[in-house]
Amino acid sequence: MARLGIHSFVWTDGGTEDSLIDAMEKSAASGYRLIELAYLKPEKFNLDRLGQRAKALDLDIAVTMGLPPAADVSSEDPDVVKRGKAVLADAVRAVRDIGGSKLGGILYSAHTKYARTPSDRGRRNSVAAIAGTAEIADKAGVDLVLEIVNRFESNLLNTAAQGLAFIAETGSDTVRLHLDTFHMNIEEANPAAAIRLAGDKIGYFHIGESNRGYLGDGVIDFDRIFDALLDIGYRRDITFESFSGAVVDEALTVACAIWRDTWTDNGPLAAHAKQFIDQKMAEARRRRETNARP
Amino acid sequence: MARLGIHSFVWTDGGTEDSLIDAMEKSAASGYRLIELAYLKPEKFNLDRLGQRAKALDLDIAVTMGLPPAADVSSEDPDVVKRGKAVLADAVRAVRDIGGSKLGGILYSAHTKYARTPSDRGRRNSVAAIAGTAEIADKAGVDLVLEIVNRFESNLLNTAAQGLAFIAETGSDTVRLHLDTFHMNIEEANPAAAIRLAGDKIGYFHIGESNRGYLGDGVIDFDRIFDALLDIGYRRDITFESFSGAVVDEALTVACAIWRDTWTDNGPLAAHAKQFIDQKMAEARRRRETNARP
Amino acid sequence: MARLGIHSFVWTDGGTEDSLIDAMEKSAASGYRLIELAYLKPEKFNLDRLGQRAKALDLDIAVTMGLPPAADVSSEDPDVVKRGKAVLADAVRAVRDIGGSKLGGILYSAHTKYARTPSDRGRRNSVAAIAGTAEIADKAGVDLVLEIVNRFESNLLNTAAQGLAFIAETGSDTVRLHLDTFHMNIEEANPAAAIRLAGDKIGYFHIGESNRGYLGDGVIDFDRIFDALLDIGYRRDITFESFSGAVVDEALTVACAIWRDTWTDNGPLAAHAKQFIDQKMAEARRRRETNARP
Amino acid sequence: MARLGIHSFVWTDGGTEDSLIDAMEKSAASGYRLIELAYLKPEKFNLDRLGQRAKALDLDIAVTMGLPPAADVSSEDPDVVKRGKAVLADAVRAVRDIGGSKLGGILYSAHTKYARTPSDRGRRNSVAAIAGTAEIADKAGVDLVLEIVNRFESNLLNTAAQGLAFIAETGSDTVRLHLDTFHMNIEEANPAAAIRLAGDKIGYFHIGESNRGYLGDGVIDFDRIFDALLDIGYRRDITFESFSGAVVDEALTVACAIWRDTWTDNGPLAAHAKQFIDQKMAEARRRRETNARP
Repeated sequence: MARLGIHSFVWTDGGTEDSLIDAMEKSAASGYRLIELAYLKPEKFNLDRLGQRAKALDLDIAVTMGLPPAADVSSEDPDVVKRGKAVLADAVRAVRDIGGSKLGGILYSAHTKYARTPSDRGRRNSVAAIAGTAEIADKAGVDLVLEIVNRFESNLLNTAAQGLAFIAETGSDTVRLHLDTFHMNIEEANPAAAIRLAGDKIGYFHIGESNRGYLGDGVIDFDRIFDALLDIGYRRDITFESFSGAVVDEALTVACAIWRDTWTDNGPLAAHAKQFIDQKMAEARRRRETNARP
Repeated sequence: MARLGIHSFVWTDGGTEDSLIDAMEKSAASGYRLIELAYLKPEKFNLDRLGQRAKALDLDIAVTMGLPPAADVSSEDPDVVKRGKAVLADAVRAVRDIGGSKLGGILYSAHTKYARTPSDRGRRNSVAAIAGTAEIADKAGVDLVLEIVNRFESNLLNTAAQGLAFIAETGSDTVRLHLDTFHMNIEEANPAAAIRLAGDKIGYFHIGESNRGYLGDGVIDFDRIFDALLDIGYRRDITFESFSGAVVDEALTVACAIWRDTWTDNGPLAAHAKQFIDQKMAEARRRRETNARP
Repeated sequence: MARLGIHSFVWTDGGTEDSLIDAMEKSAASGYRLIELAYLKPEKFNLDRLGQRAKALDLDIAVTMGLPPAADVSSEDPDVVKRGKAVLADAVRAVRDIGGSKLGGILYSAHTKYARTPSDRGRRNSVAAIAGTAEIADKAGVDLVLEIVNRFESNLLNTAAQGLAFIAETGSDTVRLHLDTFHMNIEEANPAAAIRLAGDKIGYFHIGESNRGYLGDGVIDFDRIFDALLDIGYRRDITFESFSGAVVDEALTVACAIWRDTWTDNGPLAAHAKQFIDQKMAEARRRRETNARP
Repeated sequence: MARLGIHSFVWTDGGTEDSLIDAMEKSAASGYRLIELAYLKPEKFNLDRLGQRAKALDLDIAVTMGLPPAADVSSEDPDVVKRGKAVLADAVRAVRDIGGSKLGGILYSAHTKYARTPSDRGRRNSVAAIAGTAEIADKAGVDLVLEIVNRFESNLLNTAAQGLAFIAETGSDTVRLHLDTFHMNIEEANPAAAIRLAGDKIGYFHIGESNRGYLGDGVIDFDRIFDALLDIGYRRDITFESFSGAVVDEALTVACAIWRDTWTDNGPLAAHAKQFIDQKMAEARRRRETNARP
């Protein structure tokens, strides 16, 4: 992989610019080389200062977001869709301005528990919005990656296969999938097979445990996940994500349904995740070599 | 186990009495000996007729439900709580009247994606409501079982350990847990260990796959689930549950976020689940005997 | 797969011709369409009668064997090697004469717990012997497949990767691997990955549990095995193998170290294995389709 | 657990006293607090010097061995059995003299691939021999633990359940089982269940991978192993074992069938195993706490 990242919500709810600077420093000190930030309003934060600090720490930046219902590009309402496109365009510019490499998350719909099934018209609106955003992102030098999430966080793209079909409809060669082990554990018949199915179309990868807590504190078979990432020759970024009631922003509490403290002390959590991922990846590499050695 | 059951939503959305009679006949014909019904309004259905038909087919009945937000016993609003208690009391009576053995599901809160964390006052209201309902259920000869569900379907009881603590607070000896493999796959650090932890406090058990489709079409390690059920000497009912966009009632579509058709033909699904569970249980028994044989 | 087979040692130690006829009838009656026989001395059995009976039952025949130490083609002693080549040539002819499709097993060394590491000279002898036997087999219309076994049953080929390198050295395009889940469980770093590595070079496949007893009565993750067989588009034969002290020939007792009765009644064992493999294969197919469905 | 140990064969074939001293130093430097030695002839080594060095390094010593066929206490030949008892008595004294805590391994039979099934008379001889050795060990303050091994390394005790029955026959309260994940992977229907079955009767525990190489380089589900060790409150020693053709004594090469180099550099192997076991144990503890937290 290129870089091992960590979501800023491990460190802070991101309410202030200083808290983000602090999160960057802790990420770098814990051995990570990428930080994932939730969408930042340019009017609220000095993106230049944040970008410079990241650069000084040799940290790449990924930005992820979920659209709010009022700016849902999968809506049937043209005004809502228009608002969504503007949000996406602004987000691409913010990623460029902060010096980040990619924009991911739930960009194709709202990040919400829907109360209706997706409609064909809404889906077409979403495809068109992502196709348009992809052109903007290509020009801005920003990778656009669509996060496949579980049914309770979007109604549109819940599996890698759905995501691949959606990307094909956009006609874009640059839009890729943003897969996440937490979501795959709920939706994919076989998460490792989903990774092999998606192959080079995976642009970003989230490592999260089934209960969103410590890695190892759940049911995900990470050995098979890392085997599959090696099978497809995945070399893009991997980011660790964990949410706890101890540190979380209010919108995320609701969107991700974080009612419990799976941990309270983020330092040991981040250190453990780094060691866990490094070790699992090394073991997968060794397993692959051992298997192939005559 | 006493009886192997199947959820009526495999067969029908339950909109009419005849559809439920049909579901009973198909359940019995597929080899099941219990049918699970979603809460039935006594004013809408002839419970006596349904109960007689079930009896004639040697089918036991379990009723499950989730409270609506307007009757949420974990609310802080006394009026809402009062309404919830009445709904629960009515439900117990309906189970008794239809000749059913148990009332389960999300009885302690609404079945909804909450937009707030649980409050202490709300929790106390819920404990009191369940304690009161337990007395009514005891007199009616109905088992009360609380379904532990994932974070997106309730904010109050997401793990077996939370459920055990909650039951202890009610002071009831008869209230038990209703565990479900689909939910455990999201919330428990180790589902099999959760089963061993809960032990005799498990009153009802749902077998569902991680994507709510065909058993085997997901990530759940059912071998360890059945091993654990044998470890604790579980002898109560086990019910198969699967939801598809092909057959589902509208409220459940939204509450359970069923956007995809994981299957369209319910006959083969039901036959497969019966064979799958019977075989897995037989294999677990054999494994246990083999392991213990000197 | 083409045909689902069963090893004759499930039914009989094969001491008499009638016992083999009986095994064929039971195999066919249990739904299998191939029977695997241990190497048959043409002077002892009427191969023509056996072959006719199999044909009448629509049963294909696979023959497997392990060389005895006195005819070990991986020996450094030219006389022993010469004897081994003759045994292999006789075996190919016996397979042809009985109307069988393939010769498998430990054809490249003795079937024994070696007391020495393999030598380069011995290995070269083995490669040459298999290359020569392959020519005979090609002419006879018999598939030659080399069984990869655990370290206690041969010292030469214990992993699929070793087998692939060995086959490459023979220069033959027709020799393939005969893989076996029991052996892979001991030797392969990742059995499913070994299957994907070997791909089209797998010519025959044994399904056996980790303790050589009932399927499900051990640690093998068969879901991943069947997923991998689908991944490579495997369409050749699959045979179930289980050994018990209850039914086993004396040489095999020693070679395979069968000290325990993992079962005593072979009828239910064979019926269970048929159902288990059919069901696992169907589940793997469904999982694959579900994973790929947009 | 009390102490985390490492087998001396990771470091050396143990041919000289200096090589053992070196192994002790490397074990301690790698963070281990116990070293396992193969049986040492008192006439060949200065046990006092070795014991003093271990003490200075705060290393406990475990000694393991397998009886040679000529001193097989499960033989039917009284002279062979007598020789075996003498070997065991000598070994107990050597453990005492070197200041070790336990004698383990295949003490109840030869360490060999048997060519015959066990006999009742041989088994009775073995039970009597172990009962007698237990008295000697009790007086010497040495723990006697019987290693349960796979079918290819002994014909007498291949499963934990067999071991428990055997210990019961000895009438000893102090003899315990020495379990090993490598062997359990071949013989137990469910290794974690075997650990729970044996419970407090486990006196020593070997961690080894399915192919005897790096931990993680095989099929063993170590999460369930460590969960089970916590379930039974296991607090005795755990020792890492791995064999490679790169470092191994000749007798062991043959007895354990080590034909391949699963590794060549033992330093990184030992460091990885320490980290792997520490991390898996910490994760099992956390999983257990998370599961039980209301």
